[in-house]
Parts: sequence; structure tokens; C-alpha cells
Amino acid sequence: MNNPFFKNHGPFDLLDLLENNFDLEFSLTDISKNKHIIKDVKNLDNAASNDITFFHSIKYKDLAQKTKAIACITKKEFLNFLPKECIKIISPNVLFLTALVTSKFYPDSVIDNNNLDLEIIDGKFENIIFGKNTYIGKNVSIGEKTKIGHNSLIESNVVIGKNCIIGSNVIIRNSIIEDHVHILDGAIIGKKGFGFIPNNNKNFRYPHVGYVHIKKNSEIGCGCTIDRGSLSITTIGENTYLDNQVHIAHNVKIGNNCIIAGQVGIAGSTTLGDNVIIGGQAGVSGHLIIGNNVQIGGGSGVIKDIADNSRVMGYPAKDFKKFIRESR
Amino acid sequence: MNNPFFKNHGPFDLLDLLENNFDLEFSLTDISKNKHIIKDVKNLDNAASNDITFFHSIKYKDLAQKTKAIACITKKEFLNFLPKECIKIISPNVLFLTALVTSKFYPDSVIDNNNLDLEIIDGKFENIIFGKNTYIGKNVSIGEKTKIGHNSLIESNVVIGKNCIIGSNVIIRNSIIEDHVHILDGAIIGKKGFGFIPNNNKNFRYPHVGYVHIKKNSEIGCGCTIDRGSLSITTIGENTYLDNQVHIAHNVKIGNNCIIAGQVGIAGSTTLGDNVIIGGQAGVSGHLIIGNNVQIGGGSGVIKDIADNSRVMGYPAKDFKKFIRESR
Amino acid sequence: MNNPFFKNHGPFDLLDLLENNFDLEFSLTDISKNKHIIKDVKNLDNAASNDITFFHSIKYKDLAQKTKAIACITKKEFLNFLPKECIKIISPNVLFLTALVTSKFYPDSVIDNNNLDLEIIDGKFENIIFGKNTYIGKNVSIGEKTKIGHNSLIESNVVIGKNCIIGSNVIIRNSIIEDHVHILDGAIIGKKGFGFIPNNNKNFRYPHVGYVHIKKNSEIGCGCTIDRGSLSITTIGENTYLDNQVHIAHNVKIGNNCIIAGQVGIAGSTTLGDNVIIGGQAGVSGHLIIGNNVQIGGGSGVIKDIADNSRVMGYPAKDFKKFIRESR
Repeated sequence: MNNPFFKNHGPFDLLDLLENNFDLEFSLTDISKNKHIIKDVKNLDNAASNDITFFHSIKYKDLAQKTKAIACITKKEFLNFLPKECIKIISPNVLFLTALVTSKFYPDSVIDNNNLDLEIIDGKFENIIFGKNTYIGKNVSIGEKTKIGHNSLIESNVVIGKNCIIGSNVIIRNSIIEDHVHILDGAIIGKKGFGFIPNNNKNFRYPHVGYVHIKKNSEIGCGCTIDRGSLSITTIGENTYLDNQVHIAHNVKIGNNCIIAGQVGIAGSTTLGDNVIIGGQAGVSGHLIIGNNVQIGGGSGVIKDIADNSRVMGYPAKDFKKFIRESR
Repeated sequence: MNNPFFKNHGPFDLLDLLENNFDLEFSLTDISKNKHIIKDVKNLDNAASNDITFFHSIKYKDLAQKTKAIACITKKEFLNFLPKECIKIISPNVLFLTALVTSKFYPDSVIDNNNLDLEIIDGKFENIIFGKNTYIGKNVSIGEKTKIGHNSLIESNVVIGKNCIIGSNVIIRNSIIEDHVHILDGAIIGKKGFGFIPNNNKNFRYPHVGYVHIKKNSEIGCGCTIDRGSLSITTIGENTYLDNQVHIAHNVKIGNNCIIAGQVGIAGSTTLGDNVIIGGQAGVSGHLIIGNNVQIGGGSGVIKDIADNSRVMGYPAKDFKKFIRESR
Repeated sequence: MNNPFFKNHGPFDLLDLLENNFDLEFSLTDISKNKHIIKDVKNLDNAASNDITFFHSIKYKDLAQKTKAIACITKKEFLNFLPKECIKIISPNVLFLTALVTSKFYPDSVIDNNNLDLEIIDGKFENIIFGKNTYIGKNVSIGEKTKIGHNSLIESNVVIGKNCIIGSNVIIRNSIIEDHVHILDGAIIGKKGFGFIPNNNKNFRYPHVGYVHIKKNSEIGCGCTIDRGSLSITTIGENTYLDNQVHIAHNVKIGNNCIIAGQVGIAGSTTLGDNVIIGGQAGVSGHLIIGNNVQIGGGSGVIKDIADNSRVMGYPAKDFKKFIRESR
């Protein structure tokens, strides 16, 4: 996949990319003097043979073993998990170096300002209905019979399908929204995720090159926030309903036919299967895998992976029957 | 009570209503060939002798025994709880059939689009003060000396009393707001509740015929969401204060003089008594009854009814002293 | 510090202030017939020798012993904690009498209406960039190169530094925001805290004379609410980042370089040190002291002070390792 919204300033030669740009400690495994053309920066699993990737947590060792990337930024202790032919770039701060490389490819993705050059929507689209003070930015398409409420901002890099209902006071950028989606009042979709390299004087904001993809027939409740991905896509599956005040962090992937009640929060890079039901105010930690047909009770705090067809509750979440028995 | 905001398309003859309209399995107990005129669809406890009702959970068996409804949609195993003279309509999916019947009476309540034909408020009302870009819809009345902030949308079917203060970026529809109520910035009041019949291809949205009723001298904090009822009223009692980012689901009834701290969530159809105090981030499950003078500690998760004058804390919430003792 | 935003209607003579104004029971310790000029109302620790203060909770006994205030409103049982020379004003409802005194000094701080006389920002400032429908109130200064999004309201009493990025649908009042701060879409900064004296007919709203101070290089996420202080300042330290939907109550003080994940809530008057990291959905009770370098796990409920360098998790929060061990 080429990035649909951010311009890729590559390709770069690997040595040029690293040596001429970053004032940061790193070392390469021996590589030939040949040029190594790097076309893009991607995750371990979606990197192609001309892409650079990164590997920072042991959770991803299985993906690391199978990566097709030509080069990978990683820690010294993870070297053996990577394919033999992959060029290893060893850094004490994997994420920081990856962020620097990413911002070299996508310099426009670091700052996430609001578009200040929006235009009034009137006259731009046929067959859509819109309210008062509705503005749109560049690179926007909207399908027919879609309705957009008042004071809503469709900023740049947005595709909205047909027959959607977008509420009032909604803000959308860097998002693909399929047909028949309802987005209720006050939702904020597609802003930069909460990602940065902590630094005591001034944190370094991580680039967010990804976008939000909301599939058909879904509903996003009032006041929800759905952040766009860093190197991947934040996905809401088909026919999945989110209640009010839900927060979906960057890179989260939610399957089809899920039901997510009010004030739930899902931390970054977690994946939910299909037919998942989550009760109000539950939270799911980052980088977890929640299976298909899982039910998570209201108020739960999920801190580890959950197998298909499980029903859990509690903090930390455990088997539902065990939770009920123990809390008598 | 006639529905103040949605037009009732009834009455209907019972057999006409059921047999000619729904492609859904159900069976009726023997009824005479006479016509049975059904005027409205109501809850078990507020149905009059010409109304149809529904009974889907054993929690409501006491109400079922006393219902005055002429007919009731229910499950086979609940038949004996209903009065002998009540016509029973047996369905494997009580809520779905009820939703279909409701949408027959109130077809306008299924879709909850924003009003796209709002008008600027200027010139519509005397003796009210309003900010920039404040729009109003049809069927709105606003009492004197009420102030409304900027970018606020008073959509259709809203009654606002005297001396109220409505903040900026507020959205209100299908609501009755009494005198001296403060609604702070960014609150969203009266949208359709999170109710639907799950269906793997496309969920069926439940009609929300009810409204939100906020009684006098109450305060609703910034960013709160209060959903309107499905067949009943979402009520906030007199002199009850909600802090910021609170979520009140459909059909919830909160008594007088309650204090509800930030980020609390109350799930659908739960009732709170008077003088209830709830600490920050606590959650209350749906269909519960919380008594008068109850105190719920911050962060608690309440999953069963609570008697008058209790003080609880924990997840699940238990006696406050027990919680403190056990957590040493 | 003089109050930067609210006009002080003092000074008042102590006896005049108390005896001629309030229909509330209280008694004074013997004082001379001389006039006692009171210039301001302050907290125990920042009161100068011509100020009146209040002491309502045993948690503050150490501050009480060292107060420089000429007079202090307190309970009978706390008299001995106060300096001998401090005039004691004994009241059965310390906070209520303090609120009345405060509203005498600062009558404008009781009601927190939106400014309804905002003006379009265009032409008011040089070298700032702003979006559509951006309005400003009185007593506002904005530094150069600051950008402000669409539909945002910079109400009265706001100082914004240079190179800030303020998103869309943001509302700010009574706040000082330093250079290089990012405030994301939909945040509401500086409204009156959730403070009032409960009263069954009509709660008495506590005046909020303070403001919000956000220090340089900080970031406030989408949909966050940060309430201004009552008699003190709500502070967000330098280079501190808040994720989306965080709620910060009045008088909270957060140190430098903190990281606060989504949907966290911090109750009133709590202090956080530097380098504190808080996981998503965690809550911290009011009037607590959280030390430097503390890590609080996601979903935790913190109900007591936490020492420097601690790592805690759970509800109630306990040592992290203990939590993990016990929850196996």
C-alpha cells in the first residue's frame, strides 16, 4: 500500500539516510558498499523487500522472524530473531531512531495542525446535504446522499462514502469512512496519536503517517476520539457500534459486528476480533490481541491477551465466572 | 402522557398491526375476532388499557403482574407472570418485535439525524441573550432571561425554562429543561440512546421515542452526554449536579439533590434515588435500582441494586467499610 | 500575587465584613476593638499578614501552624493548630462561610457565564493565524506565530504565549498558557470547578477566583477538561503531555515532564510531582500528594498519598509487584 495521504519523500540510500541525518548513536551490521535503496518505512509485517522496519518489543518476535524488510532498527539483544539477510541497525533507542527515519520519509506527518485554509462546503459537492458553518479542506471526497451537521470540519485527506450521517461539531481528518456510517455529534476522528519520545526538555513527537479506516454500517458515538495510526491504520470494522465518549488510540484494529459501550478506552496497537462486546468504562491495555466473540464486562481492565470465545470481567480481567464467584 | 415530541401514527388494530407488517416469527394467545384497538406502545408500568407493552427480563416480573396493557410482547416462559386478561404475544426476540411495533407507531423516531434546517436564533425570542452562531430548530420554546453561548444548537423539540444558562458548543434536542438549569460547554443532551438489535449484517436501530427531562436548579458539566429514553424519559432531578464528562444513558432516572463527580457513567434504565453522591469515574450497570442517600466511592463499579442509606465502594461495589478493611 | 483576572473589591474591616453581611452562625475569638483590615482571601500557605484564610481539614494542620494570615475561618476542634496571634473565626460550616467571604471580595467569580460579547478575532492581533469563526473576549493577549483553529472561543482573561497551537472547537477562559503549548480539538480550559456547598433546595456555588496555568511545551489532548482553581491555581507543568478525554479538577497541580494517558481523571486539590506517568483510565482522589517519578498503572484508583519513585497499580492502588502477584 502506498500512503494515501502523506507524500513519501523517499527513496533514500540506507547509508545516506542514516549517516547524514541523525545525531544519534547507532551501529549497523556489516553491509556491502552497494547502495541499498529504501523506499518506505513500514511495520514488521507489512514491510516489502525495499522497506525499512523496526523491532522494539519481544512481543513481536514472531513477526520479526518473517519480516521481508531489507533493514530493521532494533536492540542488540533482539538480533537473532531477525532473518539472516536483513540488515540490522542497532540503536539504544529504537523508537526514536525509527521516528527520525519516518519523519525523513514523511516530514508533513510530524505536526498535526488544523487546516487553517478550509472552505465553506457549499457548492463543492452535489447530492450531499450539510448544515451551517460546515467547512472542508483539500483532498476530500464525499459520497452522495451523505448528510453533514452544523459546525463540522472535514479537514484534509478524508474520504466519506455514500449515505453517511455525520453529526454536528464533528472534526475529521486523515480518514477513510465507508458507506452507511453514522458519526455522532462531537466526535473527533483522525488526529495524531498520543505518541512521542519522552525528553525532559521537550518531548519528541512521533510522526503519524497512518489514517483511520471506518468500515461500512458502523456507528461512532458522541464525543468519541479515534486517533490515526503511526505507521499503520486505525480500523473500525463493519457494523461495529461505539457508544458515547469512547477513546480508540492509534493503530488499534477493531473487527466486525463489535459492540463497545460508553466511556471504554482501548490503548494503542491493540487488536480486537469480530463480535466482541465490551461493557461500559472497560479499558484494554496496548499491544494486546483480543480474540473473536470475546465478552468483556463493564469496568474491566484487560492487561493480557484474551482467547476466542472467552468471557472476562474484573481488574485485571479474569474468567467471568471466577470474577463473580470471588467477589461474593 | 401523550408523547410531546413524536407524532403517534396509531391507533392500529392489533391483528392488522402484527400480521400485515412484520416478517418475524411470533404467536398470539387466543384472542377473539373482535378488533383490539391499540393506541400506543408503553412500558409495563405506564401502559394504559389500550396500549401494547413488552416484558423481556425477569427483573420486571412485579411490574408485569400489575400491567394494565391490553397486550404484551413476551417470551413463552414468562406467560404466567402477566395478568390473565392481557393478550400475550410470544416472540423469540421480544425487543426486536417491540422495536418494530414502536417504529410503526413512531416512524420519525428511528433515525436521529441532526436538523439541517436550523435558523439563526436572532429575532425568534424576546428577553433571551445569545452568542455567536447560535441556531434553533422547530418546536422550541425558551424562557425569559435565559442565556445561550456561542456555536450552540438548540435543535427541534426542546423546551428551556427561565433563567437558564446554556454554555457554548452545546447541542440539545428532544429535551425539557426547567428553570434555573445550567448546562456547561460542550454538553450533548437528548440524542438517541445506544440501543439496537444486533445483527451481523446490519444492526437494527431501536426507536427512541422518549426525551430528556432536566429539573430545576440542576447543573450539567462540560462534555457530558445525556441520551434520551427509548419508551421512557431520561430524568435528572432537581438541584442535581453533574461534573464534567459524565455519561447518562437512555431511560436513566436520577433523583433530587444528587452529586455526580467527573467521568461517571450510568448505564441504561438504572434509577437513582434522592441525595445520592457518586465519586469520580464510578460506573453503574444498567437496569439497577440505587436507593436514597446512597454514597458510591470514586472508581466503583456497581453491578447490583443498592439499598437506601448505604455507603459502597469497590469493583464490584461492596460495603464501604468492608472495602477499606479488605484492601489494607 | 494579586489576582490577575478578578477585581478585588476589598479591603474590608474584619468585623464589618463578617457582621454586616452574612446570615450565618459563627463566633470570633476575642479581638480588640481596633480595625483589622483584610486585603484578600487566600489559602493557608499563601496568605499574607493582611489576608483572611480557612482551615477545614486535618490534612492541612502543618500548613495551618505556619500560616501568616491575620484571621482564619475554622472549626472549634482545630483552634489549637493555628498560631496564637491568628484571629479565629469559628463556624460549623467553614467552607460555606469562606465562600461567602470570597464572594464579597470577588463578586464576579461566582457566576461563570460564557462571555456573550466576544468579537471576531480578525484584525485584533498581528502575526497570529486563525481559522473560521474564531472569537475572542476582553483582556486577552496572544503571542506571535500562535495558530488557532476553527470555531474556537478565547473568552476573557486569557494569556497565550508564542508559537502555540490551539485546535478547533476549543474554549479557553481565565488561563495563562505559556509558549509552545499545543491544545488539541475540543478541549475546555479554565471553566469554574465543580465546587459548591450542597443545599437541598439550591446548592450554593463556590466562587472560583483562580485560573489555569499551562507551562511551556505542554500538550493537552482532545476533549480534555481543565477546571480553574477556587482560591489557587490549577497548574500543568512544563513538557507535560495529556492524552484525550482527561479531566483535571480545580486546584490540581501537575509537575514537569509528566505523561498522562487517555481518560485519566484527577480530583480536586491533588498535587503531582515531576516525571509522573499515569496509564489510561486511572483516577486519583482529591487532596492527595503524588511524589516525583511515580508510575501509576492504567485503570488504577489512587486513594492515598504516594511516595517518590513508587510504582503502583490496582484499585485501591498498591505496590505494582504486589498487584501483579496477587492478581495471578
